[in-house]
Parts: sequence; structure tokens; C-alpha cells
Amino acid sequence: MQLGVIGLGRMGQIVVDRVLAAGHDVVAFDLEPEAVATAADAGAEPADSILDLLERLGEDKRIWLMVPAGEAVDATLDELEGHLDGDDVVVDGGNSHYEDSVRRAQTCEGAYLDCGTSGGPAGAQLGFSLMVGGPEWAYEALEPAFDAVATGPAGHERMGPAGSGHYVKMVHNGVEYALMQAYGEGFELLHEGRYDLDLEDVASVWNNGAVIRSWLLELCEEAFREEGTDLGTVADRVEGGSTGTWTVQEGLEQEVPLPLIYTALGERFGSRADDGRFSRRLANRLRYGFGRHEVPRRE
Amino acid sequence: MQLGVIGLGRMGQIVVDRVLAAGHDVVAFDLEPEAVATAADAGAEPADSILDLLERLGEDKRIWLMVPAGEAVDATLDELEGHLDGDDVVVDGGNSHYEDSVRRAQTCEGAYLDCGTSGGPAGAQLGFSLMVGGPEWAYEALEPAFDAVATGPAGHERMGPAGSGHYVKMVHNGVEYALMQAYGEGFELLHEGRYDLDLEDVASVWNNGAVIRSWLLELCEEAFREEGTDLGTVADRVEGGSTGTWTVQEGLEQEVPLPLIYTALGERFGSRADDGRFSRRLANRLRYGFGRHEVPRRE
Amino acid sequence: MQLGVIGLGRMGQIVVDRVLAAGHDVVAFDLEPEAVATAADAGAEPADSILDLLERLGEDKRIWLMVPAGEAVDATLDELEGHLDGDDVVVDGGNSHYEDSVRRAQTCEGAYLDCGTSGGPAGAQLGFSLMVGGPEWAYEALEPAFDAVATGPAGHERMGPAGSGHYVKMVHNGVEYALMQAYGEGFELLHEGRYDLDLEDVASVWNNGAVIRSWLLELCEEAFREEGTDLGTVADRVEGGSTGTWTVQEGLEQEVPLPLIYTALGERFGSRADDGRFSRRLANRLRYGFGRHEVPRRE
Amino acid sequence: MQLGVIGLGRMGQIVVDRVLAAGHDVVAFDLEPEAVATAADAGAEPADSILDLLERLGEDKRIWLMVPAGEAVDATLDELEGHLDGDDVVVDGGNSHYEDSVRRAQTCEGAYLDCGTSGGPAGAQLGFSLMVGGPEWAYEALEPAFDAVATGPAGHERMGPAGSGHYVKMVHNGVEYALMQAYGEGFELLHEGRYDLDLEDVASVWNNGAVIRSWLLELCEEAFREEGTDLGTVADRVEGGSTGTWTVQEGLEQEVPLPLIYTALGERFGSRADDGRFSRRLANRLRYGFGRHEVPRRE
Repeated sequence: MQLGVIGLGRMGQIVVDRVLAAGHDVVAFDLEPEAVATAADAGAEPADSILDLLERLGEDKRIWLMVPAGEAVDATLDELEGHLDGDDVVVDGGNSHYEDSVRRAQTCEGAYLDCGTSGGPAGAQLGFSLMVGGPEWAYEALEPAFDAVATGPAGHERMGPAGSGHYVKMVHNGVEYALMQAYGEGFELLHEGRYDLDLEDVASVWNNGAVIRSWLLELCEEAFREEGTDLGTVADRVEGGSTGTWTVQEGLEQEVPLPLIYTALGERFGSRADDGRFSRRLANRLRYGFGRHEVPRRE
Repeated sequence: MQLGVIGLGRMGQIVVDRVLAAGHDVVAFDLEPEAVATAADAGAEPADSILDLLERLGEDKRIWLMVPAGEAVDATLDELEGHLDGDDVVVDGGNSHYEDSVRRAQTCEGAYLDCGTSGGPAGAQLGFSLMVGGPEWAYEALEPAFDAVATGPAGHERMGPAGSGHYVKMVHNGVEYALMQAYGEGFELLHEGRYDLDLEDVASVWNNGAVIRSWLLELCEEAFREEGTDLGTVADRVEGGSTGTWTVQEGLEQEVPLPLIYTALGERFGSRADDGRFSRRLANRLRYGFGRHEVPRRE
Repeated sequence: MQLGVIGLGRMGQIVVDRVLAAGHDVVAFDLEPEAVATAADAGAEPADSILDLLERLGEDKRIWLMVPAGEAVDATLDELEGHLDGDDVVVDGGNSHYEDSVRRAQTCEGAYLDCGTSGGPAGAQLGFSLMVGGPEWAYEALEPAFDAVATGPAGHERMGPAGSGHYVKMVHNGVEYALMQAYGEGFELLHEGRYDLDLEDVASVWNNGAVIRSWLLELCEEAFREEGTDLGTVADRVEGGSTGTWTVQEGLEQEVPLPLIYTALGERFGSRADDGRFSRRLANRLRYGFGRHEVPRRE
Repeated sequence: MQLGVIGLGRMGQIVVDRVLAAGHDVVAFDLEPEAVATAADAGAEPADSILDLLERLGEDKRIWLMVPAGEAVDATLDELEGHLDGDDVVVDGGNSHYEDSVRRAQTCEGAYLDCGTSGGPAGAQLGFSLMVGGPEWAYEALEPAFDAVATGPAGHERMGPAGSGHYVKMVHNGVEYALMQAYGEGFELLHEGRYDLDLEDVASVWNNGAVIRSWLLELCEEAFREEGTDLGTVADRVEGGSTGTWTVQEGLEQEVPLPLIYTALGERFGSRADDGRFSRRLANRLRYGFGRHEVPRRE
């Protein structure tokens, strides 16, 4: 098949490479000419504009967007407007909010597939996990590309109608926050606890047969191997949080309690309180108020 | 009545003052002669040793211990050993663990009352809330003293047998942690939120008729009045935690979930992580592991 | 002063009564004629429509809305449209979302005050706590009414510009959820714990001088007095949650962690899971998966 | 090598089978003669008492205990007392509390290895993850057995001195609780949420390349495949909790907050509240107290 790829950042380039490696044709475009050149070196047909990409694609266009979630997706779709018909298919492989995907599916002239993509840069070798929402026929039309980009046929699945792919990916990320924090609690306790442990050894033996073995635990093992058992100079301010926030918001709307995901998200928020947590500062003053405990002061 | 008071720190001195003000006699002892002199100035009969105090008390001794929880209580009880009989009553007004009180009640030659005391130094004027465990007759024998030390007859109550007074006080303190944190969350959100608010005004208007009005909220109001709406130089490292820890431990034994009390306690623990929270540092390394997000480094 | 009151439910009627008792004039309207008749019996001038109410008010109209948050407020404001000028003042005393209040303040022809009202039906005797947002002059113009409806001058305060009154009330309610849950945890532990306690006695002694004394704790005391120490037939499914949800959502936007408020809200959500919590059911199947623990089955 | 195995339940039998399969000799004992017969059928030398087992082992005895944690371990060690010397090694492969293991290591006449074992019955095929504490020489002496019982040489590791094996296993289990609950939250949201999803498909696509892939997620996939996407008749009352409780207790002692592990444990406790959660029932009465919300009643 022939696939147009718009957006050639780290993830987009992996899509290009894997689709090419599967024997398909790729037409590639990015706002950065250097990224297009890289794709061309890998074997893709370069396009110097979206219009150029559209012209290079034949009938029944299949276009994969790998641009940052948000305005970049809408801007790209605006440029595609007027150039697609009902036999064309657009895939959004980024981390869009599912409600945006529902809206875009309604207005896109072609069929629209929202495709949650998990696996990170490691997917370059292994392939990704793809959660796809949208019309059945469009999903089937893209299967050769999904087979190539995913870990294989088992690595992609149509979840349901428009938005469901990004919806499932949103929840995936919420769970991811909680899993990271769960391992973090365990290793923090081992680090602070009674024994002088080699945490790489702990992670390694757990990864070999223990109930809690996982890919994230393999990444923990790698972290301790590369940074040392005390994590060396790694700092504790944690950025990010948008997909976790979306997950919690959806939990509020569905009235489903998500205390672990919420707590994991809150840890990130709390890590960024540069002036100290106000609630703790108030607690200190209250402890003085009722018990005359000395108030600790900033220097 | 005549009351012996052992332990003349801030709280013990308040006991002396309030019992004297109610027209009773007090014999006072402390390891610090200056503290005894202060009590004597207030009208108490000074004792220069525990044996001396015992001699100055007549038949049917009533002795109030206001010494730090732990070894000091046992050391004092050791000194009383051999000098009490079954008509005497000892009150432990400190923050002892209820299991210690159960044990002490079993071995004390006199009747033993465990008396949880809440209200802090403000109780000097208002009187305290006293939660008492132990034999009914002993509780009744001490009622004149309890009336004086408490806010009045409504400010003390026999909870049940030995240990129940300190047990109820333990739970009181667990709840206190959670209440402080609950107000802290609200004020933190107001402080960080959309409006430029005067938090003293907020606390004041809430204290006048709002559902969440309370003494702790009055202390919040005082805090903002004295420190400013941004709490000035108050730092965010929170000490303490033993009674909260006991409460959570009892929740574990009774299999009663106490997530708010636990979270409030954990905030204190987390505030003391001088090298950064290990779990957050691991999260940063994992975010690099699966997403190649840049790892923040300590300087 | 003369005040028009629209909305004569339980809370609106209290507003009427308290404003009348302070010696002011009230014109009252409700969609239910019986409610208008009740207000008239209390001494208010009855109106049979909003237009009628507007005609009965003189220049510089002051109108207090006490209608359910949401569409009822907008419907009432629609009816007022075209009949107000810049010297008139409308107060929304209901539980509106602060963003709605910001929007309404922008479109209302008169000045608009959003007034968070706390204290519940008990405010009939005590007066309420009123948190007001909007223009300073309008707040001052309404002060006689606020003095009457609140616990007095200390029971109302201008928080800031439009929306700030309902914003502070929203956070108040979030804190309220957490306080209720904090007391609930403590009493649940006492109820399940080691001693056979009279929880009314516990609440009573705490309310007399203890650090955690509060109005909510007085309501706990009342609850145990009226329902018994085991709360009799009271069921455990908890409804409500909108203002708590708003508070958590705002915490997400401001990136302020609110774990206690979130957990308290989640308890309500979880209490309504009629078919059992899915997460627990999955846990049971996983325990079979890795440990061959027997799977409990529904009958 | 020759290994004595005491305790031939499901896990002990797997130990026997795997050690035999690796070409070693096994002497097997259990209080149940049938279990001994099963081991004999598999190729082990049967013993009809612990003394008999000791006699059948040569010099430098290596004995693996696979009996329930607690009194059964102490009872077995009591029987071994007087029959071991410093060249002998005892392995406790059960779920003992690490403090018990420290104590036992001090009193055992032979060397004592505490061995946390993870992997469950699935380890029959795959082998287990073994976390071992105790003297280095004893660990090395048992390596052939560990190689056989574990997934291989990578599946066992000496963590440190006495107790460290069961300590690391304890924390492993705490993390396990939180991971289960994290997946549970995600699937609960998907189950209750906006889309009609096939949760087996979701788990399957996640297990193929997604960041959150893991063995527990494979068990989720199996659960949905075998029970259906709504988990069929699986009930929501979750038993167990001792190792999670130990982990939280250790967090309290080390002052390390473990909110996810705590919350996951609390979910189990809460699932067993047959009469409804007292805290929620109190919340309902309080909502009546301040807001006159109708009190739901049990039928």
C-alpha cells in the first residue's frame, strides 16, 4: 500500500521506517525540510507541502498524522480540507483528546481513525500497541500499515467508533501513572528501609518470574543499572500530566473513583510546588495554634 | 479535694492553676525545682520528691501525672510502687499509647485512670476536653478535679474501661490530622487559584455561620491574621506524627480504611524527604525510559 | 430597604423571614402560589409574576434570587432582561458554578453579585455565612440585607470580583466533604474498634474543649443522639457530589493536589456501585490468576 | 544435590517436581501421607516423619520448608532442633514476616535462608522468582536448588542478610496490591465509561507493545476471556491483606508514605463491610443535619 505520513518527529520517523520495512510505499512531509530529508534517505518519497503530498498519493488516499496533539492536528486537517473524499482515510496517531477526535471525525471529509499509540521510542524495534477508533472499513483499509507499525497483527485492534481509540489510550496513560507510582512506592520503601539493598538486583529478580514483572519494571531495572541504586543525580520534580488529568476528569464525569491514578497525578503536581506546599505550611501554623509547637521558618 | 500533681510543664501547670482556682488543694512536684516554685507561687503546696508528695497527701490519694508519654510515666509509676493501695487513684493525663495504659492499669496498686487531654495551651482559659478510661468509682472520685480541669462537667466523660480514654484520644488526634489537611487543601486551592483572595477574610466569614466552622478554622483565621494571607515565612516541613501513626496502625488491625488520616500523615512524612522523594525521581527516569522525556538533574 | 426575593423554597423563605425581621420590606415571588402566600403571611408583599415584582420595586431595584442552580437562574435572568439598568443589583444566593456567575455578571444589565450561602436550614435561627463576589458599590448597597440574612456583619464579606463568591463557596463545599469523611473515619474506627463506646458521649466530650470541636461535630453528636450509637437504620449510599466535583476539577486546572477532598468524593461515587465495584471483582479474578485463591461468586 | 522438602502443598509439590526435573534427589515429608505419596510418585524419596527425613539426608543437610507462614514454621523448626549443625542449611520458602525470619535465623542451629517466592502456581512451568536472605555461603550451597526452582539463574538472588529475602517479598506484595488496583481502576472506568468496549481486546492490544504491558495484564486478559467482558458472576468482596498490611506498617516505621498501596489495601477492607460503611452512613446523617437532605434508610 501507499501511505502518506505528515509529521516526522521521532515517532513519525519510526512510522515511516516500519512501514517502509514492511514493503510499502511512503510519501512523507514535515514543516522541517531536514526531517523530510531524513525520511527520504530512509526510502520515502519526499513531499514539500501537504498539497504536494496529496498529489503524490493516488486515489483512496491513506494519510497518517503524527503531529503534536492540539492545534497542530487542526491546522493540518484545515489544510487537507477540500482535498479529501469519502474513500480517503486519515489516521491521527498522536495523543489527542478523544473529544477532539469525535469532533474531527464529524467534520473530516474522509474517514477518520483516531489511533492511540503506546510503546514510546522503544517501539522502533518492537513495534507499537495501537488502539484504533472509527469506521470498520477504514480500519481494515489501513490494516497493512497497522500491521507494520504495531508489534504485528496482535498489536492493533479496533476499539469501537470515533474517539474510542484515543479514549482507551487516555485510560492507558492514567493506569501508567499509577503503575509508575506503585513501583516508586515499593522502591522508595526499599531504599529508605532496613536493608542495604541493590535495587537493580531486586528489579532483576522480580523481572524473572515474579507476579509484578512488567515492561515498566524492566525500565526500573535499566534505571538502577544506569543511574545507580540511589538514582544518582536524578531530580524529583516531575513534569507532564495532561493525559492523567483527562483520565481523572472522565472518572469524575462517570462517577468512577480513581484514587490511585489521582494520587499519582497529584504527586506530580506536588513535586512542582517551588515555594513549599501551602497546606503543609498552614499545618505548621495550626500546630502552633493548638499545641504551641514551634513554627519552622524559612531562612 | 486534695490533688497531687506530678509533672509541671506547660500542661501540668495549667492543671494546677485550674484545680486551685476551683478551690481545691494541690501538692505539686516536678524534677525541675523552678517548676515547683512556680506552682507554689500559684498556691500549691510544694513537694521536693515523689515520696514527699505522697506523705503530704492524706488517705485516699489522688495523683495526676502530667509527664511526657513513654518512659517518664513508667519511671514515675515505679517510684509510686509500694506506696499506694486500692483506695488510691492515679490519673495519666498525657498522650500515652492506650496499650501502655492497659498494662499500667493492671500493675498499678491504686486505681488507674487514663485521661486523654485535648485543647492545648488554650485550655488554660477554656478548660480541656478529657476522655477518661478506668473504673467507674475512680472516675467519680476524681470528678471535682475533672470538673475543674475540663471546660466543666460537660468537658469530661468516662469512655469505658482501662485504656479507653487514651484510645479515644488517639483517634481524636488522627481525625485532627485529617481536618488540618482538609482545611489546608481548601486554602491551598484558594491561594493558588483564580482570585486574589484575603484568606483571613475567607476564614472569618466561614467561621460566622458556615457549615465548616470550627475551632481549627478559628486558628486558621488567626494564622492568616498574624502571618499574612501567604503565611509569610512559615516553612513546609511538618514534624510530629506519633498519634496519627498509632491511629493508622489500629485501623490496620481493625481492618478499617482510614485514607484521609493516612494521607494527612503521609504528607508529614513526605515533607521531610530532604533528598527528594525517591518515587518521583524514579518516575522521571521511567518517563525517559518509555518516552525519552528529558531527565531533570540536580545541580 | 426594599428587597425583591425570587424563589421561595426553604432557603428563600428564610431570606424573606430574616430580612423582614430586620425591619426591611420584601416583595416576594415564586412559581408556586402557595409559597408566595406563605411569604405574604410572614409579612412580605406578594407578587404574581416577575414583571409584577419588578413594578412593585421602586428605583434602584435590589433583587435576591434563591432558585436552584442551573437553568432556573438563567430562565429568571432572561425574564429580568430589558427591565434593569446599571443602578439595579441582582444577587444570586444559590449554589451556582462560579463560571456561570462570571458569564451572568457580564450580560446582566444590572450589577450582579454572586453570593455563596452556607449554613443550611439551621441558618433560619443563626443566620448564614455569605461569600459575595461582584462590584464593591453593589455589595455595599446590599449590606442591610446581608446583615439581616447573615449571622450579622461578620457573617458576610466581599471576596472579590464577579464569580469569587461562588468560587469560595465551591471550595468551602469541597472542604466540607473532606471534614465529614474525616469525622466518619474516626467514628468508624471507634465503632469497629476495641471498646464498646457510646459515640454520643465521645462526640459530646470532644465538642467541649477538644481541638477538633466544630459545628459538624455537633451534628455528629445530634446524629448519635437521635439515631443511636450504631446509627440505626441509616443506609450507606451517599448521593450528591456536584460541588465537590467542581472543586476537584478546579484543583486539576490549578494543578493543586486535593487528595482528601478527592477521596471523600470518591467514597460517594463508590457507595453507589450497585453491581459491586468492578475493580474489586477484577482483583478477585487476578488473585485466582496468580495465586489460585478461590473466586467468590455472586449468588 | 540432595534436598529435603517439608510441606507438600501445591507450592511444595512444585518445588519437588522442579528439583527432581533438574536431576537432583529429593526426600519429601508432609503431615498428610497422601501428599507424601504424590511426591513419591513423582520420584521423591518419601519420609514418614521429620526425624525420618533427617536420617535420610546425609551430611550437610539442605532442607526446604514450604509450610504456611506462622506457627507451622516454628513447629517445624522445633522438631528440627537438636538435629542440625552449622553446616546444615534450612530454607523457609513461605510468606513469613521478615522479623520472624530474623528471629529464626538467630536461633536455628543450621544456617537459615529466608526465601521470598513469587510467581504462584504458574511457576510450575515457568519457575519462580526467589528473593533470598541469609549467609552468602548458605545461599551458594543451595544454588543448584534455586536454579531449579526459580526461572533459572536470573530468577534468584541473594538480597542481603537474614530477613532481607522476606522483606523484599513483603514489599513485592505491597506493590502487587497497588498494581492490581491500578489496572482495576482503568478497567472500571472503561467498563462504566462512554464506549461499549471489549475489555479482552483492550487487554490484548495493551499486552502487545504498550507501556503498561505486564504479567498481571496478561492475567486480566485471561480473566476477561474466561469470565466475559463484564466479569460474569465474580463477586466484589476481596479477602487477604496480610502482606499488604505488613508493607504499610513498615512504611509507617520508616516514615515513607505509601498512599497507593494503602488505598489498595483499604479497598479490600472496605469490600468486607457487610453492614455498610459506617463513615458513609454518618455522612448521610450529616447531610440531613446541615442541609435537610433526606436520609436514606435500610429496608
